[in-house]
Amino acid sequence: MTIDTAGPVLYRPARDELAYTFGGRMPVGHLRSGEVLEVFTEDCFGGRVCGPGDLPSQVCQMPYLNPVSGPFFIEDAEPGDTLAVHILSITPAREWGVSSTFPHFGALTSTSHTATLQPALEERVWLYGIDRDAGTVRFQATGSGHQVDLPLEPMIGTIGVAPAGFEARSTIVPDSHGGNLDTPLVRAGSTVYLGVNVHGAMLALGDGHARQGDGEACGVGIEIATVTTLTVEVIKKTPTVWPRLETDTGIASIGCARPLEDAYRIAHTDLVGWIAELTGMDTLDAYQLVSQAGRAPIGNVCDPNYTVAAMVDTALLPGPSPAYGGVHTRLRQRAAGPR
Amino acid sequence: MTIDTAGPVLYRPARDELAYTFGGRMPVGHLRSGEVLEVFTEDCFGGRVCGPGDLPSQVCQMPYLNPVSGPFFIEDAEPGDTLAVHILSITPAREWGVSSTFPHFGALTSTSHTATLQPALEERVWLYGIDRDAGTVRFQATGSGHQVDLPLEPMIGTIGVAPAGFEARSTIVPDSHGGNLDTPLVRAGSTVYLGVNVHGAMLALGDGHARQGDGEACGVGIEIATVTTLTVEVIKKTPTVWPRLETDTGIASIGCARPLEDAYRIAHTDLVGWIAELTGMDTLDAYQLVSQAGRAPIGNVCDPNYTVAAMVDTALLPGPSPAYGGVHTRLRQRAAGPR
Amino acid sequence: MTIDTAGPVLYRPARDELAYTFGGRMPVGHLRSGEVLEVFTEDCFGGRVCGPGDLPSQVCQMPYLNPVSGPFFIEDAEPGDTLAVHILSITPAREWGVSSTFPHFGALTSTSHTATLQPALEERVWLYGIDRDAGTVRFQATGSGHQVDLPLEPMIGTIGVAPAGFEARSTIVPDSHGGNLDTPLVRAGSTVYLGVNVHGAMLALGDGHARQGDGEACGVGIEIATVTTLTVEVIKKTPTVWPRLETDTGIASIGCARPLEDAYRIAHTDLVGWIAELTGMDTLDAYQLVSQAGRAPIGNVCDPNYTVAAMVDTALLPGPSPAYGGVHTRLRQRAAGPR
Amino acid sequence: MTIDTAGPVLYRPARDELAYTFGGRMPVGHLRSGEVLEVFTEDCFGGRVCGPGDLPSQVCQMPYLNPVSGPFFIEDAEPGDTLAVHILSITPAREWGVSSTFPHFGALTSTSHTATLQPALEERVWLYGIDRDAGTVRFQATGSGHQVDLPLEPMIGTIGVAPAGFEARSTIVPDSHGGNLDTPLVRAGSTVYLGVNVHGAMLALGDGHARQGDGEACGVGIEIATVTTLTVEVIKKTPTVWPRLETDTGIASIGCARPLEDAYRIAHTDLVGWIAELTGMDTLDAYQLVSQAGRAPIGNVCDPNYTVAAMVDTALLPGPSPAYGGVHTRLRQRAAGPR
Repeated sequence: MTIDTAGPVLYRPARDELAYTFGGRMPVGHLRSGEVLEVFTEDCFGGRVCGPGDLPSQVCQMPYLNPVSGPFFIEDAEPGDTLAVHILSITPAREWGVSSTFPHFGALTSTSHTATLQPALEERVWLYGIDRDAGTVRFQATGSGHQVDLPLEPMIGTIGVAPAGFEARSTIVPDSHGGNLDTPLVRAGSTVYLGVNVHGAMLALGDGHARQGDGEACGVGIEIATVTTLTVEVIKKTPTVWPRLETDTGIASIGCARPLEDAYRIAHTDLVGWIAELTGMDTLDAYQLVSQAGRAPIGNVCDPNYTVAAMVDTALLPGPSPAYGGVHTRLRQRAAGPR
Repeated sequence: MTIDTAGPVLYRPARDELAYTFGGRMPVGHLRSGEVLEVFTEDCFGGRVCGPGDLPSQVCQMPYLNPVSGPFFIEDAEPGDTLAVHILSITPAREWGVSSTFPHFGALTSTSHTATLQPALEERVWLYGIDRDAGTVRFQATGSGHQVDLPLEPMIGTIGVAPAGFEARSTIVPDSHGGNLDTPLVRAGSTVYLGVNVHGAMLALGDGHARQGDGEACGVGIEIATVTTLTVEVIKKTPTVWPRLETDTGIASIGCARPLEDAYRIAHTDLVGWIAELTGMDTLDAYQLVSQAGRAPIGNVCDPNYTVAAMVDTALLPGPSPAYGGVHTRLRQRAAGPR
Repeated sequence: MTIDTAGPVLYRPARDELAYTFGGRMPVGHLRSGEVLEVFTEDCFGGRVCGPGDLPSQVCQMPYLNPVSGPFFIEDAEPGDTLAVHILSITPAREWGVSSTFPHFGALTSTSHTATLQPALEERVWLYGIDRDAGTVRFQATGSGHQVDLPLEPMIGTIGVAPAGFEARSTIVPDSHGGNLDTPLVRAGSTVYLGVNVHGAMLALGDGHARQGDGEACGVGIEIATVTTLTVEVIKKTPTVWPRLETDTGIASIGCARPLEDAYRIAHTDLVGWIAELTGMDTLDAYQLVSQAGRAPIGNVCDPNYTVAAMVDTALLPGPSPAYGGVHTRLRQRAAGPR
Repeated sequence: MTIDTAGPVLYRPARDELAYTFGGRMPVGHLRSGEVLEVFTEDCFGGRVCGPGDLPSQVCQMPYLNPVSGPFFIEDAEPGDTLAVHILSITPAREWGVSSTFPHFGALTSTSHTATLQPALEERVWLYGIDRDAGTVRFQATGSGHQVDLPLEPMIGTIGVAPAGFEARSTIVPDSHGGNLDTPLVRAGSTVYLGVNVHGAMLALGDGHARQGDGEACGVGIEIATVTTLTVEVIKKTPTVWPRLETDTGIASIGCARPLEDAYRIAHTDLVGWIAELTGMDTLDAYQLVSQAGRAPIGNVCDPNYTVAAMVDTALLPGPSPAYGGVHTRLRQRAAGPR
């Protein structure tokens, strides 16, 4: 593995470089295992929604929503490998974030797919001030004077690689290639594992959130542009079917599907198999342990596929073989050390 | 409201007093607002599964599963009122708990409803030792030597009242009357709010768990008999449509439905309306706040209806009118004081 | 089996005899195998919606919707038996039928369970003239002059027995005990098979429709009161898990569940097993034959459980053992003969 | 519109010309409105499964499944237009068809998305003889001697255009661009309407079935190679959101989604709006008419999205403006006339 000594690769996309699919795009840059990338990501509205007067359905145009920065060609990544992406930091790039309702999008409205004859809810924009020193974002009600500070917990909503089978998928969609997972687990300190489907993997990311609630009920988090730093490593000849994730204390599998119980089933079936593989426990023992000690945070209940993570604390596992050869710890330590 | 001075009402059901429905039963006792009940609850297997040789499908017989203790006739509870049930303590009644797989039941198997042509998974029993002093339950793998202690976090899986519309529902089912909610939120210190559907409400409970993971994946928690103490209060002329819950720091609505996203939708729609009512915020502001700050713990993904809670910290709300007239705080304080 | 010689048993419920649950009721009459019952059934609104000014949500009151006539205690029916109900005729009892939208009920609106923040669709009533001689019902648009005659195809929306497990279920609900199946297959000439759960089976029926489209999209068929004649036979020691049905040309299994694919899975898994049992074909051969030659008419997509039937022509099966010992043919012939 | 006088365009793909996505491909030919195309389509297995020994999971390789012939660049088709594809004939290209089970694929098994810990069903192949003169396909049981002739009802399982938003989608997937709809409505005599998303529309088709049951339960129809003739016409400045279809007697909208009720909702919401637009009836009247007279044949319950059609007889509509300017009748008549 190459140890990076030259400082991070910097990338700030020009507006016309923003991507709206995973797959079907030429790379904007190259990364080697061990290199650090510092990348600017635009918000899901392409920065066009700056206040209450900027209704998303008026200032944005399909399909130019949820832009990602990339794709990056990862040296030596081949189909059948796994790409580990360790996130070092996610910094809001502006002093505000924005949320909104959006016509026929979100969990508490009929939608293009849960189609009804009812008119859409009112479209409305909320602007949030971000106080990075205090670590807060300020909610300000639009119909009354109430305001309250919420913890600033930056996350990347959309991260993925090119899909398999010659597909190109909208950046709105989460699926086995990653994409619009919209789970707060993708935060600084996490390592995301994505199965490589094409030569060079073609990593891209965007859609930062200052924070979001479980399920991103209204369909829109507190959307922010970010400067995100990450580093990658290719794990050779190790396939990964569904996105996985590791933190300092736990491992998680992420399922993307409708109905929501299928996202749960995918994530948990994958996690049970992963635990059995790492620890040598039999499958039913792993199933049992996850049944009593697993957590299942809901990512989104608004995107074309919903997401649920299945997570377990590594401390509960029998001296497991480190996941993916210990890459999380290695990248974590390198990130902490001198660059 | 009557202040109880006489010590708790004690109830330990004889075996033939156990109930298998909500509704359709005569009361086993009476409770007045403010009285404390100390009740023994059997485990979901009726205490018949005591070790690996006791396969549930062999030692138990449908419909004699998931017994509850009760129902209790609550004085002065009428349709249109709400019953607040504050849980003071849940103590494991034995030194062990038990879990199992069960043929064609659980989230990671086809079932009677998600029906397929595949044979069932192996039926297997896990016995857990409970160390009340240490506050742990011990998982012991059956196929290897691995064992690990998990936090003891006792909860009541099944609590409810008689349903509306002359129905009687199996204790396996969670629905708007409560029932088999299987959410860890029903623990000591919580107040559960249930809409009263019939004269006397007819409260019953059972199905204790030493703990469970999110979704109760295998369909069975760490099942325990308990001694549970609770107190009740009737909130007059205040209907409650779906079960709600309050802790010292948050309020929650609980949705019960299939598919899982409908449980999410029910819970969140209810919570948004509840917040708007308590705080005077408009509905879209409440929707927005929940979207960014709400939590949505999954209860079960195995019962006839799945459960999801929608929860928000009361500290984030604008000096809310206390829910249900502050009954949670009142019951909490009374519980802490001398009885 | 008793051969009936005394003419049909007649039953016309007084208003306060109408039932709103399956289970939890005392019988209104008794029937022996072979006897013919002629029964009046009210419409789903209890006859209260007679024109555009009678909005259901105003003139009806929960839970007094969807009344059934019965239950009838069936002599010699015991748990583990199957009740065969052969429908001889369904005659509209009035010269009109009625349909409506209903707030937050139906397939093309958010509902109490697919809950959203949107207001309900307009509530509106449509009155249909019935021309029994012509065999038509007349649709008359409310917002324009369009009118068109549709075929009169009377069916019984709700038919069932008392559920298992001491349950009583609202007549709005379809499930394994039958109930609000809302499938046009329950028409004159069909034999419905229902598993007996309690002593006497406790058969009840109602909710006639002059006709309905697949799925009963708006939640309400062309609702009619009927005079229905039927005959029953108890098939001893033959359990039936989900409702089944036989016509002169085909057999069908009926699944009731959410999401809709689970109703499909239940029905098809049951039908595949039934075919394998009747014909000796192996399960995968039966699965294959159903995959290529099966029909899957959707019953309802509006009730608490959705219904799908899985159906196959008996002519395609290898000289099958007649279902349930040939009871359909026997009842059909007896119905055609002199009574 | 150009009247074709030169006889059909013929196209028979070389093996390496077969396409596995909609979108992301260069055209294999060009078509003008009015021209007739005669195209060979391979079966879903690429012709590799010829008998019981050819297990699909062994002789086929992902993603080389479900090949389509095309795409064809349609002259003058631009985003915002609709492409009408009238199917003149579908002729089986060989004297046999084939079906199979496939590991973890189909409605009556757990799958990659309805994931469970159960092993897959047995993989097995069924070979069907086709008798074109008799108009039958012969089912031959594998585990017993039973054989039976089923009606030959050839259909095209997969037909679509390039998706919007720069996407490329696997040919396994049905969605708003068409694709793997797997509905028997796509047969000779039908006109399919597809919204044009990209310059030239990029029409492709394949996956013929000799017939299939409702829902294609085992995941595989009676798969055949075909010679299919069709003609196209571009309807300018007329968008179409979801696939629609017209026959000599009815119009249909097709919804593609999970869960299955969302496919139902999409199809019916689209049909109701279409009827209102064609006839001037108000939306609720159209909803009511569809509720009583609509049919809802299930297409597939096995693909990544399920499909349901919503269909109504045009004879029931008030002298409707012909759909899409009467293109179906025009193409139908031209097809019947001398070419």
